[in-house]
Amino acid sequence: MVKAKAFILHKRFVGEPKASDLKLVEEDLPPLKDGEFLAEAVYLSVDPYMRAYADRLPLGNTFIGIQVALITESKHPKYQVGKHVVGSFGWRTHTISNGVSVAGDVPILILPDLGELPVSLGVGILGMPGNTAYFGFLEICKPKAGETVVVTGAAGAVGSHVGQIAKIKGCKVIGIAGSDEKNKWLKEELNFDHVINYKTQDVEAELKKAAPDGVDCYFDNVGGEISTIILNQMNLFGRVSVCGAISGYNNRNIKAGVVQFPLVFRQLKMEGFMVLRWTDRWMEGILQNLAWIKQGKLKYRETITVGFDKMFNAFVDMLRGVNQGKAVVKI
Amino acid sequence: MVKAKAFILHKRFVGEPKASDLKLVEEDLPPLKDGEFLAEAVYLSVDPYMRAYADRLPLGNTFIGIQVALITESKHPKYQVGKHVVGSFGWRTHTISNGVSVAGDVPILILPDLGELPVSLGVGILGMPGNTAYFGFLEICKPKAGETVVVTGAAGAVGSHVGQIAKIKGCKVIGIAGSDEKNKWLKEELNFDHVINYKTQDVEAELKKAAPDGVDCYFDNVGGEISTIILNQMNLFGRVSVCGAISGYNNRNIKAGVVQFPLVFRQLKMEGFMVLRWTDRWMEGILQNLAWIKQGKLKYRETITVGFDKMFNAFVDMLRGVNQGKAVVKI
Repeated sequence: MVKAKAFILHKRFVGEPKASDLKLVEEDLPPLKDGEFLAEAVYLSVDPYMRAYADRLPLGNTFIGIQVALITESKHPKYQVGKHVVGSFGWRTHTISNGVSVAGDVPILILPDLGELPVSLGVGILGMPGNTAYFGFLEICKPKAGETVVVTGAAGAVGSHVGQIAKIKGCKVIGIAGSDEKNKWLKEELNFDHVINYKTQDVEAELKKAAPDGVDCYFDNVGGEISTIILNQMNLFGRVSVCGAISGYNNRNIKAGVVQFPLVFRQLKMEGFMVLRWTDRWMEGILQNLAWIKQGKLKYRETITVGFDKMFNAFVDMLRGVNQGKAVVKI
Repeated sequence: MVKAKAFILHKRFVGEPKASDLKLVEEDLPPLKDGEFLAEAVYLSVDPYMRAYADRLPLGNTFIGIQVALITESKHPKYQVGKHVVGSFGWRTHTISNGVSVAGDVPILILPDLGELPVSLGVGILGMPGNTAYFGFLEICKPKAGETVVVTGAAGAVGSHVGQIAKIKGCKVIGIAGSDEKNKWLKEELNFDHVINYKTQDVEAELKKAAPDGVDCYFDNVGGEISTIILNQMNLFGRVSVCGAISGYNNRNIKAGVVQFPLVFRQLKMEGFMVLRWTDRWMEGILQNLAWIKQGKLKYRETITVGFDKMFNAFVDMLRGVNQGKAVVKI
């Protein structure tokens, strides 16, 4: 009999999540039926959206999340033992699946052959965060060569990726992140044109210096006051892709300067999205990102925490911005 | 010699404009040159945008605004004596023009024959505010029959017009305005489905009752907290047309609940606009609105103040929301 460990949502998060809000449980999994396979988690993802979506998850449910898992048993012709799958199985070590994802959720994919690249990328730059950057930036911001692009949460999995796509598209890129160490990485390794440390610098003044001709595209991971400051420096007909609002996930009651002023006077277009709207084009994003990695145009960094029992710590560290690039937990 | 009276911007507005911020001056106009005509103001418009745009107007300049004027002298073959023109001449009684509007400004139009309708409509429902409603709502919200539409500033020139277009398009319309008298007009004469008085009612609770299935389109005239409340009740893929932010024109430092939460989770599209982006389709809007008036589908109300010396009072009353429908000053 296979024993699965899982974290369930035990109490509603209030402010920053507490370890006691989740509970580690053990389950005995039943034997496989025809059409099912057993997947053993190898890498689990922790992402900002989990904090926001947890508010909708019924108490007692397995906490949400995507993982790369190895198929260790199978009674499904397509999902063969030894293959890796990427699935929205939640925070659990072992999962029985029939390959069908929950309606409206990320599809359960057999990971394509990544060659020498680590399979962990299946929950990172070659998975949901990678597609979030690819579709969310290109489809909504529609960047043109020569334009100026600002990215917040710039050292995160999605932000660092968006900035590099913007460079690939010939844009000038300004990244805003929360430490000098992150910014050094963005500038020196990822070739961002300018970086701003929002914790130690005056974003309004620094952005004026970095973008004296204004901002054309803004990829918004944070929401709140920093976003309003950026909107107020945008050019006529600028485009804003709203990916997240991490500045307020722990406190939805925050207020910020009113966005309608710059929206009207600069005639901005601002659109929020969830990457699942592009599930029908899912492989397009993964394959393009893979091609860019192989061409040396797209770099990534992972912050890896080891041990399933460390899931919560990795999650809270990510919310606090401790990670650079993608935060993952290795079993 | 023709003497023109004009209001010039004397001091920067701080908070609500004061009468002493403007100065009434007299000018002697020179004789007409070839290609010029003299236009005598008949109706002058006061609009919310004036408060916002005044911040960019150099001190000493004639205060901004559109008027319907009668051509009383002409040395221009196209602009004949006895015709009415609509022009962005500012707050002045007499203007010498060559028919060319300032780049990027509203075109100077010879008013088409309105039959029995008053020429004042040239600065209202058949002018800039009318086109603001027509293009700003239809092009950005793209309403579909059966959808639920919310309009703020609903009893103003633009808001009352947008609500009626939404009804013409088969939508359910909820208007939010600041007095029961206004709301009575919207409901009983303009056939809005629901009305909310934001000064005396709980907008969040009332909107839940009026739109139990959520809001699909929002035409935003006010910005600020009320807009955030509405965004939080929108449906997936809702559209928001941002026309103005009158709630904050007197105090740009107001803060409101963060819009990025609903934008992301409901995947909303929010776009600000200025009507001048549609100058190439200007007559389309005017003629459609005229047709709807003649068909009895589109009603209007004007709040008319008499006397050029009362311009400032009409302006501040409009900012305070005293008017119903279009606020104009009759000479």
